[in-house]
Amino acid sequence: MLGSTYGTFTPDPRRARAVACGNLPSATVHGRAAAAGDLDVSGRPLHADVPDLDRFFRPETVAVVGASDAEGRPNSGVTRQLAAWAARVGARLYPVHPTRPAVLGVPCVRSVAELPEPVDVAAVLVGDPLPVVEELAAAKARFAVVFASGFAETGAAGAAAQDRLAAAVRGTGLRLLGPNTNLNAFQEFRADLQGPAIALLTQSGHQGRPLYALQELGIRLSHWAPTGNEADLETADFLAYFAEQPEVGCVAAYVEGLKDGRAFLLAADRAARRGVPVVAVKVGRTETGARTAASHTGKLTGADTVVDAAMRQYGVIRVDGLDELQDTAALLARARPPRADGVAVHCISGGTGAHFADLAAAAGLRLPRLSEAKQAELHQWIPHDLNVSNPVDNGGHPVGDGRGRKIIDALLADPEIGVLVCPVTGPFPPLSDKLVRDLVAAAEDTDKLVCVIWGSPVGTEDAYRTTLLGSSRVATFRTFANCVTAVRAYLAHHRFTASYRSPFDEAPRTPSPSFRKAQALLRPGHQLSEHAAKQLLRAYGIRVPREQLVTSAAAAVRAAGQVGYPVVMKASGARIAHKTDLGLVKIGLTSASQVRDAYRDLTDIARYEDVDLDGVLVCQMVERGVEMVVGVSQDPLFGPTVTVGLGGVLVEVLHDVSVRVPPFGEDQARAMLDELRGRPLLDGVRGAPPGDLDALVEVVLRVQRMALELGGALAELEINPLVVLGQGVAALDALVRCA
Amino acid sequence: MLGSTYGTFTPDPRRARAVACGNLPSATVHGRAAAAGDLDVSGRPLHADVPDLDRFFRPETVAVVGASDAEGRPNSGVTRQLAAWAARVGARLYPVHPTRPAVLGVPCVRSVAELPEPVDVAAVLVGDPLPVVEELAAAKARFAVVFASGFAETGAAGAAAQDRLAAAVRGTGLRLLGPNTNLNAFQEFRADLQGPAIALLTQSGHQGRPLYALQELGIRLSHWAPTGNEADLETADFLAYFAEQPEVGCVAAYVEGLKDGRAFLLAADRAARRGVPVVAVKVGRTETGARTAASHTGKLTGADTVVDAAMRQYGVIRVDGLDELQDTAALLARARPPRADGVAVHCISGGTGAHFADLAAAAGLRLPRLSEAKQAELHQWIPHDLNVSNPVDNGGHPVGDGRGRKIIDALLADPEIGVLVCPVTGPFPPLSDKLVRDLVAAAEDTDKLVCVIWGSPVGTEDAYRTTLLGSSRVATFRTFANCVTAVRAYLAHHRFTASYRSPFDEAPRTPSPSFRKAQALLRPGHQLSEHAAKQLLRAYGIRVPREQLVTSAAAAVRAAGQVGYPVVMKASGARIAHKTDLGLVKIGLTSASQVRDAYRDLTDIARYEDVDLDGVLVCQMVERGVEMVVGVSQDPLFGPTVTVGLGGVLVEVLHDVSVRVPPFGEDQARAMLDELRGRPLLDGVRGAPPGDLDALVEVVLRVQRMALELGGALAELEINPLVVLGQGVAALDALVRCA
Repeated sequence: MLGSTYGTFTPDPRRARAVACGNLPSATVHGRAAAAGDLDVSGRPLHADVPDLDRFFRPETVAVVGASDAEGRPNSGVTRQLAAWAARVGARLYPVHPTRPAVLGVPCVRSVAELPEPVDVAAVLVGDPLPVVEELAAAKARFAVVFASGFAETGAAGAAAQDRLAAAVRGTGLRLLGPNTNLNAFQEFRADLQGPAIALLTQSGHQGRPLYALQELGIRLSHWAPTGNEADLETADFLAYFAEQPEVGCVAAYVEGLKDGRAFLLAADRAARRGVPVVAVKVGRTETGARTAASHTGKLTGADTVVDAAMRQYGVIRVDGLDELQDTAALLARARPPRADGVAVHCISGGTGAHFADLAAAAGLRLPRLSEAKQAELHQWIPHDLNVSNPVDNGGHPVGDGRGRKIIDALLADPEIGVLVCPVTGPFPPLSDKLVRDLVAAAEDTDKLVCVIWGSPVGTEDAYRTTLLGSSRVATFRTFANCVTAVRAYLAHHRFTASYRSPFDEAPRTPSPSFRKAQALLRPGHQLSEHAAKQLLRAYGIRVPREQLVTSAAAAVRAAGQVGYPVVMKASGARIAHKTDLGLVKIGLTSASQVRDAYRDLTDIARYEDVDLDGVLVCQMVERGVEMVVGVSQDPLFGPTVTVGLGGVLVEVLHDVSVRVPPFGEDQARAMLDELRGRPLLDGVRGAPPGDLDALVEVVLRVQRMALELGGALAELEINPLVVLGQGVAALDALVRCA
Repeated sequence: MLGSTYGTFTPDPRRARAVACGNLPSATVHGRAAAAGDLDVSGRPLHADVPDLDRFFRPETVAVVGASDAEGRPNSGVTRQLAAWAARVGARLYPVHPTRPAVLGVPCVRSVAELPEPVDVAAVLVGDPLPVVEELAAAKARFAVVFASGFAETGAAGAAAQDRLAAAVRGTGLRLLGPNTNLNAFQEFRADLQGPAIALLTQSGHQGRPLYALQELGIRLSHWAPTGNEADLETADFLAYFAEQPEVGCVAAYVEGLKDGRAFLLAADRAARRGVPVVAVKVGRTETGARTAASHTGKLTGADTVVDAAMRQYGVIRVDGLDELQDTAALLARARPPRADGVAVHCISGGTGAHFADLAAAAGLRLPRLSEAKQAELHQWIPHDLNVSNPVDNGGHPVGDGRGRKIIDALLADPEIGVLVCPVTGPFPPLSDKLVRDLVAAAEDTDKLVCVIWGSPVGTEDAYRTTLLGSSRVATFRTFANCVTAVRAYLAHHRFTASYRSPFDEAPRTPSPSFRKAQALLRPGHQLSEHAAKQLLRAYGIRVPREQLVTSAAAAVRAAGQVGYPVVMKASGARIAHKTDLGLVKIGLTSASQVRDAYRDLTDIARYEDVDLDGVLVCQMVERGVEMVVGVSQDPLFGPTVTVGLGGVLVEVLHDVSVRVPPFGEDQARAMLDELRGRPLLDGVRGAPPGDLDALVEVVLRVQRMALELGGALAELEINPLVVLGQGVAALDALVRCA
């Protein structure tokens, strides 16, 4: 029900075929407009369709439908806030009400039809918004904002009502925000704060509050989009728009579910291309969270491992807490690109240095040992019995006088150092106040990142409230953990964008020659036999050992002669799982008589186990190697996904697999292997030769191609095992389910 | 060098033997006094030796050696603080100075020898403390506090000087705190705060500051022990003492390194027996952190996996950040034992509920679905379209009136609920101020735990500063993560102590009959042959397949007849590693001729590979099972440790092992298996029968016994593989290194 409501990706074999044959209407895919030629081979768009939201955020005309200023009416408060917003942005206000002569002193228009001009934004305060939305579409309004609740979040009837709202705007020029949204988009932002801002994107108004409150700590915000139920405008639309606004330094998002996986990725891709960091809390790590989120906004949370992988593919920084979201977004919005990835830690206590260094190193930050020359320089100001190799323990006293600033400047001048972190665990005003003043001043004179952790739990100290929060150049944290998280995200973001190449630029638009062959092998609604599944792999150029399908013992002996001894023999049929456990695989057969016996055994067992055979496979025997699993699954949000894992116990017991959402490039295919815990096996353990990683990566990419070309028609693929040899790979078995 | 400075556990085969023979002097082990009969079979104490620190914290007499009140002298500030402290605790003050007539108006004593009475605490402010400490010992002082630095933290010469300080007090009645300590122990604590307090134990003054500052948030502190270099008094001493003080609700510790692993465990055991929670930051997760910590206090950080396991064995709650330490300690100090382990989440936004539930469930907290009756009760006050199954989304408005308190009381009345968490993500005074007032009032009327998360990053709001921090019954947090961490620790602590049985009560004091047999097999300084190693296992009742060591082909054939076909044959020698890789193992031999051929092959290969053989093993062949590894290693801090892991690739590539510090009971041996990621293999996968866990646990316990009895004489043991069968286990190979 939810799936149909939101038009999530539904495996559709016809679409893949239609696209391949060039006869798919190109106008709408998943309800999104897309220009001709803008589709990949799976029939999905290759470019974000970014709505022009300028007039939404800075309208010239605002209508309030259902406006009121009567005492005690809930709409009166909302009307007042909308009127204030319209005044702030300089828009003409049109209260719409059938009977009231005026609201807040502004004469009312009696109906939407009587509006004197097409309005930019119409706020719809009425309980049944559908007729109003239809009138607004007819009146050529640009944006409607629907506050009413009781739609998809309440169940099937509400979802149907929401579908009707979506249908009312589809194909018209009107775009709709909501239903079940709020006034967050019309909040006032502090105009006195300078520099790059955070744009906020939330699927819960309350959850966005602490980020909005960052302004009280001196962090600039520029936008807030509360997307509500996303009947039309969705998270991806605002993300793509925010990524293009010059004042936006970072997009901070609180996401419970997504409406359309591809749209989200295209928006994230847009941000990645422009180097705009996106930091997100995404609910749904657990079943409990996913279920609760679904009942809150009626959205799908998606399979979390897939969401997680998809975010990483596009450099979206996922965090767990709203505090991490605040601190990471604030840092990323304001910090200039790093000059180096080395982190220097400077503190007034050796214990603080040891503790912070421990947490930083555990998170993968690099704390380079300072050069002997730099240490000697620091020892001009710091006693010689203190360790200044990094962390730099100044012992306290030097920061109280003129030495303090010199130490900071010397660290910032080190070319290996891109980030200076100064954890002030406990305030001791004679030292710590002077220290933070020096840090704030030094930060003004450098383009390197200066971070301070104000560790006091009290937080009313002047050095914190005034000196630190008064600086837009120092990144201030309250905990070691959040500083480590934010600095890691900062370095990772710039590393990511520096080498980012959009996979959409290289995504296939037309089917490969393999596609027709593959198509002919599919049997909609069925599972293929092992033999047919392997032919599918062959069609995509994936190496399968020589094999023949036979239906008699004599044919088996002939086949063995042609395949070459020793051979492996396996029962073949459409629905045989766990062949080995059933005794339906015979290995290492070296003679005609063994082959004959094996044929008899296999067919006997099959009869006994009541297994339907289409014959027996006589296969070339392959040397031993590392057993991998490569597969394709269908995700309700993101469509086909590609997984790779180490085989045997590693995948069965430990689920040691890595997943990616197509399209992705070779770099991501290699990164998948690096994510496997059992990865060292591929490099050779106990004297085994290293596996042929290039050949393995090539298979992953060919499987991706297959997944994109066959689309939903390929419900499931599992090559298991794919044996990685010293040279090349071989697919020994495969399971294919057609949709 | 550091090891010798601190008397860490050094494997000493003579000690193990001496203890076994009953001729070890029982007075001092590792420099700690221990009553006769108080030692386990490894010669280490079974009871914490808790110094009486009452007179340290509440002295009747205080001497300040090197006292000053001269303007500009560093000692003057210290003297003033000590004098103020002496006045606060009502102690008589004796400034000691050779020439000054008086300090701060108190007449000086010219030397320690001239003190009119044995003092309780003597603060030593002089740069070279050794002569003063010697005089204090002679003058029968109880405690000396040495502030001077330049000892073990600076290198070998400093470590030797520190050894001399330690020697000066050993065997005297004088106990020494420091060197390199500070005034933290003499801070003033707020007397107006009530209820159980946090006792603070830190190896860095600066790192303790934020915890001390908790008093400004209304959290009571009772003690602060800054242990410095721990020449004499150490972390364990204060931990054991604090655990016995009635006003202490929780011990919060910041630890960089430990002086003596056993002493720490005995102190933690004492806390566990009394149900006093201990929360600790322990630096040393990474090499970087360990190295920096060592250079800070000159202490060993210990192998982190072993430290981590040891802490868990005694219920010490390890956290990473000082903020987690503050929040967890504050909660554990003040909250009463839980009435149930169910957590209810109550919030004014569905998004907040979904997000918190996601993080809580990911951390293993249980959010039970509320009963239909309870939901119906809640729906009297909460609109029906909101989800109240838990999380409870009240939609906001009900908390603004009389319904608010009724909802809270209804949740607290649910017998499944032990903890109520209310995350207030953003303040909206008309609702949130009323909500926190209701929560504070409800918390007064219940013995269940009420937690509030004040999510605003600003933190100057009155509802937070006054209402929440003014309550000693509500546990207030600033982040979801810290609330989840603290609540999990709270439930885990009470679960742990409810079933805690001290392993020291059941630790063996005298050697088992196996010991003499085992002792005879050890070859100090050498690695045992496989055959000898297996005899050692047999001595401890661990099943080894039948085998014979032979030195001729004819003997091999005879042995095979006696062992029973099929057999396995292996080259045997003192230094053969990776036998299988070298081809030095032949399996599945079924006839005399195969045995003869195998004998020839093995001896040929050994010659070719230049391997010294003591013969060839002819072994009973064992059916296939799950391959495990069970071993013993020596840790510099904790002595012998026992590890268990899954064999093959799981231990080699993934290091899937679990470790424990003896002594431990059967419960811990079983818990070790549960910690293994590959654990499902033992339960049987793909139709394999479950392994005999009882037999495996029995081997772990027998190996522990061996480790305790042989002590340092057993440098290393690795049974690999130990095959776990459907019934029983079998050790197929073992490596033993003697110290």
